[in-house]
Amino acid sequence: MRRWNGWGDDSIEFAVNADALGFLQERIGQGVLQKDASKASVIASVPTSRLTPHPLIDTSPEVRVQHSLGQSLPDWLKMRFGRIEQFPDGVAFPESSEQVRQLLDYASRHDVALIPYGGGTSVVGHLAVPRSNQLVLSVSMVRMAQLLNLDKEAQLATFGAGVFGPDLEAQLRAHGYTLGHFPQSFEYSTLGGWVVTRSSGQQSLRYGRIEQLFAGGRIETPAGRLDIPTFPASAAGTDLREIILGSEGRIGILTEVTVRISRLPASEEFHAVFFPDWDKAQQAVRSIAQAKLPLSMLRLSNSTETLTSLKLAGHKKLIGLLETYLALRHCGDKKCLLLLGASGDKPHVRHAINNALKLGKAHGGVHVGQTMGHKWKQGRFKNVYLRNTLWQQGYAIDTVETACDWPKVAGMMQAIEYAATSALASDGEQLHTYTHLSHLYAQGASVYTTFVYRLTGDYERDLKRWKKLKAAASQAIVDHGGTISHQHGVGSDHAPYLHEEKGELGIAALRHLYQHFDPDGIMNPGKLLPELSSPKEN
Amino acid sequence: MRRWNGWGDDSIEFAVNADALGFLQERIGQGVLQKDASKASVIASVPTSRLTPHPLIDTSPEVRVQHSLGQSLPDWLKMRFGRIEQFPDGVAFPESSEQVRQLLDYASRHDVALIPYGGGTSVVGHLAVPRSNQLVLSVSMVRMAQLLNLDKEAQLATFGAGVFGPDLEAQLRAHGYTLGHFPQSFEYSTLGGWVVTRSSGQQSLRYGRIEQLFAGGRIETPAGRLDIPTFPASAAGTDLREIILGSEGRIGILTEVTVRISRLPASEEFHAVFFPDWDKAQQAVRSIAQAKLPLSMLRLSNSTETLTSLKLAGHKKLIGLLETYLALRHCGDKKCLLLLGASGDKPHVRHAINNALKLGKAHGGVHVGQTMGHKWKQGRFKNVYLRNTLWQQGYAIDTVETACDWPKVAGMMQAIEYAATSALASDGEQLHTYTHLSHLYAQGASVYTTFVYRLTGDYERDLKRWKKLKAAASQAIVDHGGTISHQHGVGSDHAPYLHEEKGELGIAALRHLYQHFDPDGIMNPGKLLPELSSPKEN
Repeated sequence: MRRWNGWGDDSIEFAVNADALGFLQERIGQGVLQKDASKASVIASVPTSRLTPHPLIDTSPEVRVQHSLGQSLPDWLKMRFGRIEQFPDGVAFPESSEQVRQLLDYASRHDVALIPYGGGTSVVGHLAVPRSNQLVLSVSMVRMAQLLNLDKEAQLATFGAGVFGPDLEAQLRAHGYTLGHFPQSFEYSTLGGWVVTRSSGQQSLRYGRIEQLFAGGRIETPAGRLDIPTFPASAAGTDLREIILGSEGRIGILTEVTVRISRLPASEEFHAVFFPDWDKAQQAVRSIAQAKLPLSMLRLSNSTETLTSLKLAGHKKLIGLLETYLALRHCGDKKCLLLLGASGDKPHVRHAINNALKLGKAHGGVHVGQTMGHKWKQGRFKNVYLRNTLWQQGYAIDTVETACDWPKVAGMMQAIEYAATSALASDGEQLHTYTHLSHLYAQGASVYTTFVYRLTGDYERDLKRWKKLKAAASQAIVDHGGTISHQHGVGSDHAPYLHEEKGELGIAALRHLYQHFDPDGIMNPGKLLPELSSPKEN
Repeated sequence: MRRWNGWGDDSIEFAVNADALGFLQERIGQGVLQKDASKASVIASVPTSRLTPHPLIDTSPEVRVQHSLGQSLPDWLKMRFGRIEQFPDGVAFPESSEQVRQLLDYASRHDVALIPYGGGTSVVGHLAVPRSNQLVLSVSMVRMAQLLNLDKEAQLATFGAGVFGPDLEAQLRAHGYTLGHFPQSFEYSTLGGWVVTRSSGQQSLRYGRIEQLFAGGRIETPAGRLDIPTFPASAAGTDLREIILGSEGRIGILTEVTVRISRLPASEEFHAVFFPDWDKAQQAVRSIAQAKLPLSMLRLSNSTETLTSLKLAGHKKLIGLLETYLALRHCGDKKCLLLLGASGDKPHVRHAINNALKLGKAHGGVHVGQTMGHKWKQGRFKNVYLRNTLWQQGYAIDTVETACDWPKVAGMMQAIEYAATSALASDGEQLHTYTHLSHLYAQGASVYTTFVYRLTGDYERDLKRWKKLKAAASQAIVDHGGTISHQHGVGSDHAPYLHEEKGELGIAALRHLYQHFDPDGIMNPGKLLPELSSPKEN
């Protein structure tokens, strides 16, 4: 069953070996164990719903608890400490665009704010219920999950927007196709969620970001329905798909999505290459990314992430042997791990992998075969369970991510890690932090940094600590020329940093545009663009 | 020197051999020769400028004539018959964003409509001066043409938006780079023009459409300046680049553009393959496009275009030998010519070409080597000069283009050709029409149809004939599920068809968005989105 106050299915545990735990304790100290609030006590704290009854709306406290938050660190604090203070007044489970339309009309009539809810995996506060007196209805899309149309000739598939990653892939796989969109949240995130947050999958080098995969669809907005037809490309003015992408619920509810699919690849490989240090590794991946090789994935860990991964892998003896071998090949303490993948017909995969390995070798890369790559693939959606395990040990894990042009990449990584470390140092705390480049482009890369640090056992102190850390890392990102998000979106947590990249005029134009679809401001208020002023909050 | 009433440089002629001309005469009859209006008479017809003088504005009649039109067929009729009835009141030649700002302020102060002018190659009426009493200033961007910044590490180059294709490539080539954007208008179109009309180049399969190449830049709008920073990718809400792309002058004047560049390829090949008929050819190109091979170009001509190209090529004896050989390989009267290209390192090119040829062969394709491909490359920007030559012989050439999903492609081609043929038949005229797929995608293809027909020698009759033809072809496009433009844009000529694909709500949202940047409606009025009501026209 899905965990109510953590990540994923409660039958799955990410076991951490004693050696890895010792490594962490040595770096940041013993975790502070704490007791979680019970689900029953949280359910008991839910106030009575203020909504006018509607046949599509469930107002039971348990369902409202389940839809009150996402998966950000402050969301976890609220769940674990039983401090969820805002709940939606109800949750609707529409089964068709027509039912979504009914809900929009209901919301307009009764002045209810709507929060579209996909899989609940947002880590930036897309789903938070605003602190205001406005009535709030969450709209869960999970009952709109079917494959509605499959056009094999044009390689297009239309789904209900609420389909989860695994169900989408299963329905396509039955016909020999794949979407190929695998964000880390894949198992619990939805197609509609991917589109409205501009998600990026781990094999985007082959399949593209969701922007390239989203071909058309239907969105129900307060101002009416917008149907976007599919074309392979168009020069007919502004592309309306681009207005839906990244709109984060501000213009309406996406109900149907047509995506560009591919035939299942005949072959798929993931290889591991170690580099002596970061500089050589970055030069290698840049040259590979700029060679336009038809790879599916490039993922480069810095030396601390490489070390952490090797610790977590267990198999102390085997890893020891590997490290001895690598040290002989000049990959010692500063070594960085690159995973690279290719998918397609055998000759295609050979062409891509061989040429990438050749470029890697030219920069001191040591190829160690496919074993680590396959391990990575097996665990690609399981690593995130480490959050649960470490929390039980009194540690928090959080991540920030950005993307920037190549000349800024190394400096960005250092600036984020330094800013976060400094922020915690002022609390007298150590931070274990590491980074990887998760998506590589000819122009630059995404920079994805993980923080592990100790919880305090106190809600207010933990929240304050997180805020300090998040603010320092976010400020470092915008100060060093990165976008505030490469793949997580904006939500509530990143909204204050958006004007740095959009400009005042850009922000005002977007606000103006969204108002056209949502004149009364009932769609996910406060997310993406902060409200100018909300009369209801006065 | 650039022709004032036709295409390109007046030292370049596209010679048509007698055999090809005979072929055309046989199909549609003898052309009706006519006399062009003199440039002097047109200049003499220019009314006095009504503009308040400004140091950046040239109001001389000759310059105003040169900036009054684009290259659409009705534009040609106006130039050739000396029937240009609307001229801009002046033309400004700004040299910086600051000067553009001055012009915007001047325009706001004096209620002057602005028409941004790049290379003047629009074929859909982007540059037409509205039939109203409003003062009109054309803003030529040609003096903003420098390479302003080159970032080799991130493969980014920033140019003044008015740089012409050849000047852009020359400045990059000096450093070993290319943009790789080669629309047919390349020699006379500008970078800024490509961006605001969502242009697509002939090698977009490798380099991407301008949407993928446009990384950021600066636009001066009546509401202020918008600077768009460069990121390799971002999930930070709506992408502001997408609001500039395809905006066709409605929100402001693009002054600087940063583009994603590539290293000059070490090797480049273009191969020709003939197929026995359209069905086999289309199946082949679809399978190639869906195989994700790293090609640079695919271009498939239907049988009439193939025949026409062979006639125009001259070399009657050689072509005869080729046709005898092809007939033995089942490529007879219905044969279709595919050109395919690849660029990059030698192994990359080998991989792409060999695998594409293999797929072609599986569908009955006969590979005839690289000669025709190289001829095509040599003449890629010269074919358009055929418009001049045939006009002199009393024939008009016009083109329409769209893109649609694969299941609609063959029907679309037939529908466009049939609609246009029928429209002319009602005049008792024959049409010589042929089509190619110029850009191929896994999802579908662009469909590019050429019409050759006789001029009447009378301005009104020619305009009426064109309108009938254009309306029939455009209606066929939208009726059969195509976008009204894949690469030419919307301008004035396609605006009436836009609501079919954007919907009423979509059109209204775009209007609302553009108004935010241009509250007084001075930016290129009447283009892209038709005006709701223009009080000045009452």
